[in-house]
Amino acid sequence: MPSYRAPVKDMQFILHDVLNISSSDVPGYAELDRDFTRAILDEAAKFSENVLQPLNKVGDEEGCALENGVVRTPKGFKDAYDRMRDGGWIGLDCPEEFGGQNMPYLINSAVSEMFVSANMSFNMYQGLIHAAVSAILAHGTDQQKSDYLPNLVSGAWAGTMNLTEPHCGTDLGLIRTKAEPRGDGTHAITGSKIWISGGEHDLAENIIHLVLAKIPGGPEGVKGISLFIVPKFLIKEDGSLGERNAVSCGGLESKMGIHGNATCVMNYDGATGYLVGEEHKGMRAMFTMMNEARLGVGLQGYAQACVAHQNALAFARERLQGRDVTEVRNPDGPADPIIVHPDVRRNLMDQKSFVEGARAFTFWGASLIDEARRKGNAEAEALVSLLTPVLKGFLTDKGFETTVLAQQTLGGSGFTKEWGLEQFVRDARITMIYEGTNGIQALDLVGRKLGLNGGKTIMGFFEMVKSFIKENEGDADLGEGFLEPLKKASKDLQAAGAWFLQHGVKNPNNALAGSYDFMHLFGHVCLGLMWARMAKASGAALAAGSGDAEFHKAKIATGRYHMARQLPATGLHLARIESGADTVMELDAANF
Amino acid sequence: MPSYRAPVKDMQFILHDVLNISSSDVPGYAELDRDFTRAILDEAAKFSENVLQPLNKVGDEEGCALENGVVRTPKGFKDAYDRMRDGGWIGLDCPEEFGGQNMPYLINSAVSEMFVSANMSFNMYQGLIHAAVSAILAHGTDQQKSDYLPNLVSGAWAGTMNLTEPHCGTDLGLIRTKAEPRGDGTHAITGSKIWISGGEHDLAENIIHLVLAKIPGGPEGVKGISLFIVPKFLIKEDGSLGERNAVSCGGLESKMGIHGNATCVMNYDGATGYLVGEEHKGMRAMFTMMNEARLGVGLQGYAQACVAHQNALAFARERLQGRDVTEVRNPDGPADPIIVHPDVRRNLMDQKSFVEGARAFTFWGASLIDEARRKGNAEAEALVSLLTPVLKGFLTDKGFETTVLAQQTLGGSGFTKEWGLEQFVRDARITMIYEGTNGIQALDLVGRKLGLNGGKTIMGFFEMVKSFIKENEGDADLGEGFLEPLKKASKDLQAAGAWFLQHGVKNPNNALAGSYDFMHLFGHVCLGLMWARMAKASGAALAAGSGDAEFHKAKIATGRYHMARQLPATGLHLARIESGADTVMELDAANF
Repeated sequence: MPSYRAPVKDMQFILHDVLNISSSDVPGYAELDRDFTRAILDEAAKFSENVLQPLNKVGDEEGCALENGVVRTPKGFKDAYDRMRDGGWIGLDCPEEFGGQNMPYLINSAVSEMFVSANMSFNMYQGLIHAAVSAILAHGTDQQKSDYLPNLVSGAWAGTMNLTEPHCGTDLGLIRTKAEPRGDGTHAITGSKIWISGGEHDLAENIIHLVLAKIPGGPEGVKGISLFIVPKFLIKEDGSLGERNAVSCGGLESKMGIHGNATCVMNYDGATGYLVGEEHKGMRAMFTMMNEARLGVGLQGYAQACVAHQNALAFARERLQGRDVTEVRNPDGPADPIIVHPDVRRNLMDQKSFVEGARAFTFWGASLIDEARRKGNAEAEALVSLLTPVLKGFLTDKGFETTVLAQQTLGGSGFTKEWGLEQFVRDARITMIYEGTNGIQALDLVGRKLGLNGGKTIMGFFEMVKSFIKENEGDADLGEGFLEPLKKASKDLQAAGAWFLQHGVKNPNNALAGSYDFMHLFGHVCLGLMWARMAKASGAALAAGSGDAEFHKAKIATGRYHMARQLPATGLHLARIESGADTVMELDAANF
Repeated sequence: MPSYRAPVKDMQFILHDVLNISSSDVPGYAELDRDFTRAILDEAAKFSENVLQPLNKVGDEEGCALENGVVRTPKGFKDAYDRMRDGGWIGLDCPEEFGGQNMPYLINSAVSEMFVSANMSFNMYQGLIHAAVSAILAHGTDQQKSDYLPNLVSGAWAGTMNLTEPHCGTDLGLIRTKAEPRGDGTHAITGSKIWISGGEHDLAENIIHLVLAKIPGGPEGVKGISLFIVPKFLIKEDGSLGERNAVSCGGLESKMGIHGNATCVMNYDGATGYLVGEEHKGMRAMFTMMNEARLGVGLQGYAQACVAHQNALAFARERLQGRDVTEVRNPDGPADPIIVHPDVRRNLMDQKSFVEGARAFTFWGASLIDEARRKGNAEAEALVSLLTPVLKGFLTDKGFETTVLAQQTLGGSGFTKEWGLEQFVRDARITMIYEGTNGIQALDLVGRKLGLNGGKTIMGFFEMVKSFIKENEGDADLGEGFLEPLKKASKDLQAAGAWFLQHGVKNPNNALAGSYDFMHLFGHVCLGLMWARMAKASGAALAAGSGDAEFHKAKIATGRYHMARQLPATGLHLARIESGADTVMELDAANF
């Protein structure tokens, strides 16, 4: 059976030593001193380790069942959901006025990482509530806010997002679900949606569906899409639950992983829907939630890698096979623990250095969301928009890859269900697909985000890296191991951007064919920057005589490994980008 | 439901245009003209497509069941096995004297690829018979050969390999299974083996287990291991089946994939065993089978990628989402097929170019085994020994990665069980683990194979690449697109070898920490060489006015893509190797 220990110490390091949050002027950050965040993280850790994690395997093995239109979640999920709700975790970062705790998004992200590592399928039920809350907060009327938000924030009601239809996933312009005005301000929603996570379940007394649909007579394509609230049970004037709405679960998807989460076909048969925001402006409302939702998926990617790595590490310390070729290690045992072998260590260091780098990157992204949301900082908003496809695409690709590496550490045991690593792999796989496939993230990055503010945002990013390097040039500890590789990687990223400018204008395919590599190149630069910052913070802590010298020394050693072994990937991505679109586009579809 | 079409045309191209087999002087090759191989491949294709492939999903969903010591294989497996046996496929490359068809190993590999693409779990039952046949052929007595081979070759009896025990997988020196001499020439085998593929099943009337065990009083470690035949039913003097031997299946492993194949715990309780070869020389007997078995696993890796790619391609041609940004494609449809999008093509081209390159590499490897076995060519034997860890490690890593890419082409559909891609991913995953994990392959490559014949074998490989480049330097079509990238990649490989020589002697960890990257670097050079050879063959066919110009043009275009996008990976692997062991080894195991 796999186990999980929440990485509280590492989170504290990022929050305080690297991001230095309590000295930030973002509203709400000042009170986040070490003791305070430690108390929250410790509570979340206990809940993750003791309540959520033991249900992870149960969820995978039992899955969900649809009986007479009702979805039964795995044994223990309802009890855990009640405890999560009672603990106030669901509304952690929601406004106090609706019953939330008004914590920064950053703190919510740290807590989420633990919940996801412990039980990704389970956490999705509450994670989707956040999406519904965000949409209603940003675009709902005051009446809608008071009707829905208190019960969503408390977790009494759950939420869903309904976008995909059988014939359209990525291309939402093809949506067929209809919303016909009834003349009383409501619309009759008719159509079928697929792949709706938590579309139906037994955890909450009501489910608030947010549904994309077309009002007849509106513009073609994505410009004619509107967003609606469609509650499972209609709400009476007094706020109590009324009659059942004409929405039902038509089937459950049988899938590779996240078995504990119900992936539903949802049928709308003239269901009562309430318009959110303006007519035909549904896509804009969806985009409001996008940055957060995508950052949340990137987080899922490395959170699975994190728990997988922990179990790989435990195995590598215990499993005795072969002998260290260089020295005597375990003379009384029949063999040495496999962690002595260089190739096993290479594998473990790849895992460790990715997970810690990804955590720093995600926390930084979350802090930018707080800057944007709480301080109204437009530059932070633009920067996190630029970084969002990288956070989602790079961290989930690498998260999956890292989870596979962790599985590999266990050899044959990694392939068995007993050790649980294979579940992490199956669960992690979805993160590369949903909330926009990673190919779509790359398209978003190169097609939209590079040109944000006329290119000023990406130039600002380059400047930030440059300034960091310049500021620290005198630091001998950072120099060769961190600054040089970062400089080289950043130069490759700039060269790729320049290549797109030069060759992508006359032929957009030249940019599109390199978009995926660009996303990875960007990801490597971001993780390189994070490792340089972490090394600096640990260097400072050591210089100040920190009590936990081993932790900081390990941090610097891990960073050194990452810079030496991972950063050179930027050269490969640049070479691919510079090979252009010709070889990609040459074959006729018939000749594949 | 996924489908499968056997790639007969591509196989014919490799056999005849690239390897030019019918003009080879390897005994048995002369009769292999185009029509002859075509007839065999067409038959194998029909069997794969019509009989094996439809059972692939059944096998996954139903799995195997253990009831009262008997393992029931999935519905339809027994009938398919009978048909495979009756078709003479099982003894295809076995000696005629024992009822086989004496076909070259190369032809058997081509046929195996189809069987594996169609149904990997099923094919393992017969694949393991080959291992048993090889061991007995190479090391058995004449009596053992006549007792066991005819029924193994016909498939009336099945075979297994019993190596792993709960406490030892990679490190076979730790084996505890005991073989006590009974004084009558037989041994009493006692112990427990795990992860035994096809250890018990209902397909054949007897199962011949090949078991590694220790004779008490022998040398410590791997030098004290002997190999035994342990039949499920003992054989009577007249050749008929006698009493049940004291071997039984104690349980089935629950695992990520290959559900159709029974992975058994096997208990030996004083079972009658017959020594194969000499006492304490069991490891040598095992190594005899190693090259073939490992090449067979490499083949499984790309065979899964092949069928996954076919299904991804079909999806990409049909699925309508979004519009080509450069031209009008499907004006009457609501959107364009996704194959028009550059990033979808990048993904498909990665798949296609890997699968075709891997096929050529594997067929080349198989032809070297024929050279060694049928002609007694020691150089070929050494070369294929050198290449074996690359064939196994690189092709399974990349095979899995490519299968994941194919799954990604389908977006959300790829995650559902309905489309079948996720099964290919789960099944492909084991190939990186069994028959020696890929980390062990890398260790074998750098620790043993590089030094083979005092380094002459690797030098011979470099010479071969060099000669190919030199011979073709005048060919403008090959020059920039193929020879230059190949030259650069081969130079990186040589540089890596030189770095090991320089830094690995004083500190072996410097070589070991770079072993995995070296294996991948080597793999890229091999695939580059294969693509250059294929491009040359297609160029010649086009110059000769081949009737299938589109095929050859597509081949060259695919090769160009591969050289431009994949070969630059060698630079990254070299950089990692040259970063040495220090960052890998620095952390104390306690500080991870």
